Amino acid sequence: MLMREYIILNFKTYEESTGDKALNLAKICDEVARETNARIVVIPQLTDIYRISQAVEIPVYSQHIDNVKPGSNTGYILPESIKAAGAVGSLINHSERRLKLSDIEADIRRIRELDMVSIVCTNNVEVTKATATMGPDFVAIEPPELIGSGISVSKTRPEIISGSVDAVKNLNPDVGVLCGAGISTGEDVKKAIELGACGVLLASGVIKAKNPRAVLMDLVSGLG
Amino acid sequence: MLMREYIILNFKTYEESTGDKALNLAKICDEVARETNARIVVIPQLTDIYRISQAVEIPVYSQHIDNVKPGSNTGYILPESIKAAGAVGSLINHSERRLKLSDIEADIRRIRELDMVSIVCTNNVEVTKATATMGPDFVAIEPPELIGSGISVSKTRPEIISGSVDAVKNLNPDVGVLCGAGISTGEDVKKAIELGACGVLLASGVIKAKNPRAVLMDLVSGLG
Amino acid sequence: MLMREYIILNFKTYEESTGDKALNLAKICDEVARETNARIVVIPQLTDIYRISQAVEIPVYSQHIDNVKPGSNTGYILPESIKAAGAVGSLINHSERRLKLSDIEADIRRIRELDMVSIVCTNNVEVTKATATMGPDFVAIEPPELIGSGISVSKTRPEIISGSVDAVKNLNPDVGVLCGAGISTGEDVKKAIELGACGVLLASGVIKAKNPRAVLMDLVSGLG
Amino acid sequence: MLMREYIILNFKTYEESTGDKALNLAKICDEVARETNARIVVIPQLTDIYRISQAVEIPVYSQHIDNVKPGSNTGYILPESIKAAGAVGSLINHSERRLKLSDIEADIRRIRELDMVSIVCTNNVEVTKATATMGPDFVAIEPPELIGSGISVSKTRPEIISGSVDAVKNLNPDVGVLCGAGISTGEDVKKAIELGACGVLLASGVIKAKNPRAVLMDLVSGLG
Repeated sequence: MLMREYIILNFKTYEESTGDKALNLAKICDEVARETNARIVVIPQLTDIYRISQAVEIPVYSQHIDNVKPGSNTGYILPESIKAAGAVGSLINHSERRLKLSDIEADIRRIRELDMVSIVCTNNVEVTKATATMGPDFVAIEPPELIGSGISVSKTRPEIISGSVDAVKNLNPDVGVLCGAGISTGEDVKKAIELGACGVLLASGVIKAKNPRAVLMDLVSGLG
Repeated sequence: MLMREYIILNFKTYEESTGDKALNLAKICDEVARETNARIVVIPQLTDIYRISQAVEIPVYSQHIDNVKPGSNTGYILPESIKAAGAVGSLINHSERRLKLSDIEADIRRIRELDMVSIVCTNNVEVTKATATMGPDFVAIEPPELIGSGISVSKTRPEIISGSVDAVKNLNPDVGVLCGAGISTGEDVKKAIELGACGVLLASGVIKAKNPRAVLMDLVSGLG
Repeated sequence: MLMREYIILNFKTYEESTGDKALNLAKICDEVARETNARIVVIPQLTDIYRISQAVEIPVYSQHIDNVKPGSNTGYILPESIKAAGAVGSLINHSERRLKLSDIEADIRRIRELDMVSIVCTNNVEVTKATATMGPDFVAIEPPELIGSGISVSKTRPEIISGSVDAVKNLNPDVGVLCGAGISTGEDVKKAIELGACGVLLASGVIKAKNPRAVLMDLVSGLG
Repeated sequence: MLMREYIILNFKTYEESTGDKALNLAKICDEVARETNARIVVIPQLTDIYRISQAVEIPVYSQHIDNVKPGSNTGYILPESIKAAGAVGSLINHSERRLKLSDIEADIRRIRELDMVSIVCTNNVEVTKATATMGPDFVAIEPPELIGSGISVSKTRPEIISGSVDAVKNLNPDVGVLCGAGISTGEDVKKAIELGACGVLLASGVIKAKNPRAVLMDLVSGLG
């Protein structure tokens, strides 16, 4: 049986997670998920979604979608195109790709209509509350100053996680809260879960690691 | 031996050119290219580049790249990622995805460094001249008011094509001029070539056609 | 004593509301406000804020602010700059100038810290709810399809107004709901107030009118 | 008789150049211009253009315009609005406010049609060349890494200035080349003029100075 909580890995645009290397990394995640029964999700670049979704059993999400309909939108990311490539969910409003409020609301609806999973990234408790009212599947709270820092939000700013968890529970208890920014060890994960998060969103901690499999195993040890 | 001129097909984000349908359409282009010795290029959505480049022999380009380096750029299009997926060129600054001047200049350099082909779209003779000085492989002149109109720029505004061809010849004769906007028949292609263009860029004329193969065969008949 | 409800006039970038004409129009609004005791607010272009705020007694707001701090931000709209010019509030996220969620949240806080009034524009009930949680002074609900249409939202889509009013009352009763889009007569205003709005936001109905004073007098007749 | 070369002062959004302080600084520039016969231009924030243009005789420019026509463009900067406020020119594409190529081309034409002066900022020789073909009145070359650095481009990267001057002379000799980035002394100005620039564009060197008048006098000493 799968564990309840999530480890969600954003591949960003690192050299270590592009093309063949992305495929390889996704396969490692897939193996760790199978061995440990952990819920692991990978979020590769758009160009790598297809080949990764063909090769692994764990869910593959997209890093971004654009609020466009099928038609004349050269260079934009049609939600239907990521689904056709095998993605079953998408990040929305990552701190490196902030979106307009009206687009976030439309994106959440589109993703729901396509039977996919939405994770909306937020930067503070106020934005988390606003986002929760729009009913995404998850919010991922990531204080921008801690992203990529190696300083875990769950340890240094626990009130942001617990504040978000409380606020979301009040406004829209169906929305899960993910903890991002600075997560790199099983202890960080454990602390996040204790604060009420239902999982973690991370990137460099695994992708830039010398031994991604070992880091993943450690992260999983913090679950459940 | 291949013909000299190009027929370049932008898949945009049409339903008819997403996922399996994109793959199917690319295969038709591939067959027509083989049968006729025409140079045909396909430009599918980002998510479809990999599977199409695996399945066809004609060149596959990307609709867009972002001016980012490998690193923390969630949701952006790393030039290296499209190359890893099998693309050998990219559109830059399509009328539906206009870019900043400084990004266009940087994109042209990046694409060149990656040994790929750049096509910069422009909207009038002045912008074509500015673009030519930056040395892309091609400029594709597309008056925005004619895009998707079915009214061929080569017929109704020939002075835009010939003006662009002359200006580019003066400023940077290594840059090829493509004719976009409203192209849908072999006659449109022929007229464009007569005006000095080295090919055409089109989308709906083929993609929305009942019989894309027949339209492609007609377009090719206008070459050489 | 002033009336309770608001008539808020967005000058946009119409020729009829630029420079001397903007000043003249603001003076008419000022006179009507004095004569009728109606609360009228004018929102001219940035370049006209200073001279209008010097010439009238009614409040002057800005059409936009940027989420920037004092410093190196050439061409951006520093909140402090509109205050220094005499503005006492600002529109945020107008449908013609949609903003990122994280900027809206930061803008609301900045405006509050500067003791100014914030009006956040929204496009549907979901976005209104998200906005209300962030605590602006007002939300102005404007279905984009009705803006500039002459078809009043309060008449044709009353459920959007009443739905917004109800939702805001639940989430954050300190936030006032303004009714925008298609307002042009006193009857439209009356209907909006009956649905629970605390005022209206309009533009072309007055600015493009042959006799703006007469339209304003009619609008005021719908209040209280 | 006025000198030939220009000292152009971008007020950015510094606290020291907002509202009353902006007015005061502009008056100092005006006095220095009168005393020395130097051509000095001030570029305050949008909200300060009107009151400054009313108070000084030296030319006042805008930091930015948007590519919009009179109409429904809430929050955008209509070129006609800056002219109505007393501006006689505008920066376009400042490094802190980069614009799309197609907007730069349209902006240059609009500014010309309004009988105003255009200064397009550029970041390297290639972009300077592209810009020169579009015929602005001036290009201001500012390597982004030197802006606000206090390290003068004219001293440390003279080849960028001379390369730009040569390229512009070839392509469009009617375009003046301004030297930006790191200018803070009369010697920097002198060096820029020797390299073929027709003036300098600067900001912090004067605005953040304890004694802006003294810095201005020193800068002017480098002219002619």
